[in-house]
Amino acid sequence: MALIVQKYGGTSVGSVERIQAVAERVKRWRDQGHRVVVVVSAMSGETDRLLGLARKIQPCPEPRELDVLLSTGEQVTIALLSMALAAQGCAARSYTGAQVHILTDSVHNKARIRDIDAARVHADLEAGRVVVVAGFQGVDEHGDITTLGRGGSDTSAVAIAAALKADECQIYTDVDGVYTTDPRVEPRARKLDRITFEEMLEMASLGSKVLQIRSVEFAGKYRVPLRVLSSFGEGEGTLITFEEDVVEDAKIAGIAFSRDEAKLTILGVPDQPGIAHRILGPIAAANIEVDMIIQNIATEEPTTDFTFTVHRSDYARAMEILRTLASELGARQTLGDEQIVKISLVGVGMRSHAGIASRMFETLAVEGINIRMISTSEIKISVVVDEKYLELGVRALHQAFGLDGVQAA
Amino acid sequence: MALIVQKYGGTSVGSVERIQAVAERVKRWRDQGHRVVVVVSAMSGETDRLLGLARKIQPCPEPRELDVLLSTGEQVTIALLSMALAAQGCAARSYTGAQVHILTDSVHNKARIRDIDAARVHADLEAGRVVVVAGFQGVDEHGDITTLGRGGSDTSAVAIAAALKADECQIYTDVDGVYTTDPRVEPRARKLDRITFEEMLEMASLGSKVLQIRSVEFAGKYRVPLRVLSSFGEGEGTLITFEEDVVEDAKIAGIAFSRDEAKLTILGVPDQPGIAHRILGPIAAANIEVDMIIQNIATEEPTTDFTFTVHRSDYARAMEILRTLASELGARQTLGDEQIVKISLVGVGMRSHAGIASRMFETLAVEGINIRMISTSEIKISVVVDEKYLELGVRALHQAFGLDGVQAA
Repeated sequence: MALIVQKYGGTSVGSVERIQAVAERVKRWRDQGHRVVVVVSAMSGETDRLLGLARKIQPCPEPRELDVLLSTGEQVTIALLSMALAAQGCAARSYTGAQVHILTDSVHNKARIRDIDAARVHADLEAGRVVVVAGFQGVDEHGDITTLGRGGSDTSAVAIAAALKADECQIYTDVDGVYTTDPRVEPRARKLDRITFEEMLEMASLGSKVLQIRSVEFAGKYRVPLRVLSSFGEGEGTLITFEEDVVEDAKIAGIAFSRDEAKLTILGVPDQPGIAHRILGPIAAANIEVDMIIQNIATEEPTTDFTFTVHRSDYARAMEILRTLASELGARQTLGDEQIVKISLVGVGMRSHAGIASRMFETLAVEGINIRMISTSEIKISVVVDEKYLELGVRALHQAFGLDGVQAA
Repeated sequence: MALIVQKYGGTSVGSVERIQAVAERVKRWRDQGHRVVVVVSAMSGETDRLLGLARKIQPCPEPRELDVLLSTGEQVTIALLSMALAAQGCAARSYTGAQVHILTDSVHNKARIRDIDAARVHADLEAGRVVVVAGFQGVDEHGDITTLGRGGSDTSAVAIAAALKADECQIYTDVDGVYTTDPRVEPRARKLDRITFEEMLEMASLGSKVLQIRSVEFAGKYRVPLRVLSSFGEGEGTLITFEEDVVEDAKIAGIAFSRDEAKLTILGVPDQPGIAHRILGPIAAANIEVDMIIQNIATEEPTTDFTFTVHRSDYARAMEILRTLASELGARQTLGDEQIVKISLVGVGMRSHAGIASRMFETLAVEGINIRMISTSEIKISVVVDEKYLELGVRALHQAFGLDGVQAA
């Protein structure tokens, strides 16, 4: 008799038939005596259709109005799913983000959730109804509609689960769980039954696209047990747990990677206190996120070389800023590389096991893969390598760390 | 420097290009210094598309959820129109029905407006913005989304005009004003520059589809000056006025007609007090609206014959009820006729001019049109005739009462 929050993404509700299949699944949980809240995305294709209309009018649509427009996508889904549930004899009631007071800040198109009024949802659950909530959207303190940005429905689901103190938040998707790495790159990738919250957070931030990172952060903050599972098949999926000791005894949980990296270097800047801020300040001011940062003593003292990575889509803007800085600072040269990727090992086991890093570097060396940058945290090691080595590196590491499962048929 | 409420229907906002044209028109009013509130419908075809999705799931969709679904139609339009205004350098802000607190009762799919909170709209107008409001929709006291039923956007516009104490409410449509009769039936039909509110009310209730009747009632109740005009061409349209004396000196303003009529008769029921209620009570209880009613002394006393008309779509249900009643009351027979229409003369001039009715009857007699039922009010005379005489009757009356204008090219 648990309280379950289920989230279904755009593909899972992509047609009337699929919405009816979701209703059947929800009803099965309901019939087992559970109280169920369902969070849904827009039907697949709908958000792009609406964006297309907007862009015919304004290449960069007004953020406030774009949210008014896009939020209709989920509103259509909640109504149709509630009808499908009713048609199957399962009482249901739909709510937009505003109706359940998913209060956000006022940053249109990528708002953050501040608070949720759970009273109305609880009242419906008490009355035996399934509650269907529009994901991705909220309302700010002025009553303006906001959206959380792409993938925000995961965050909505976790936030609602936290507000309701749900027993579990189930994210239904088109894969059947979290894998040791992307099965499209390594067919021997194995589904994990469990993964710790910290590992999942690293996996998400390092490029695994199964869960949106903000939803994982939210789950961590409010200790919401999350489960990723398939909306098409059956199976238990992957549980993101807070109990580290029950997790399988593996040093490494998985290998994440990101193709969207770019590297920038400024050579021969004065080696003075505050130089990092002089260089990265203007980058941050342009709203460009910097990931890895390395500062080396340059060959010609008293200058230093400075390298950092950014998202590939920010590369051109970042390089322009860096060139301006270079002439201001009297730097010797700027360099850039857009053909790089990041590969990361993630695992809480790393904490207590020495030698993970050295085995990683050794494995890559054996394959002749040159490491360009390294960054570490307590539970992950990331390396930047040339783009062409991505598949080779991932597969070699997957085998070296004993992650290989039975190859998918 | 007037405060103008403009309403654009589905055809007027049926594509991105038409929405941009509406934005241009709105901006022209704005640039003349007027404060403008725009009320819009869903893009033409959108409501039917959404209804189609719903009906694939439930033949009779849940009323509450249908409102959640259909209300997205106008929400898309308000966002796109606000963007189009912004793209033309005209600051604008969109609001759903709920956001401007268009408070309605809780009768989903045909809710009635109770109240509107105009404060937010006034604040935006003061700040120099155009305000774009979703028509057709509101919110009930529980925060549930409601819709006003088809054509409800007219009513939204008038209600908003009333709440804002607007100087004029302009209904933009695909015709350029109110005509003496439907130009598709009588090509000599003439556009009226002005019509009184009472005449417009009769015209709307008698089958003229230019304005939705509830919007005219609302305009009357709050004395909102209404103007009907074309969203495609220019021109002054038709003003619905409360100043009877300035209206052109015509006895008859126009001829309305309705094809959606059906007639039912029950013969030989006991002529007792309360018999009308015995017959019409069950009809009303089935939510069927009765229009004209005639009770005759039957040829065989002490019985009576009873005839009434209903909307053609209610005919089958009404006839079923009547047959049950007939056997309960021991009536001699029931008769029905679905092949009838109603033609009505409307004009405030009727009050002070005798002989209108007799000239009407004479005109129809000359054409050999048999009158089946008659009903009158202070400013209208309606007759029921066989369906086949509709065009002939309308044209003969149009000419007889001097309504003919210059024939449209």
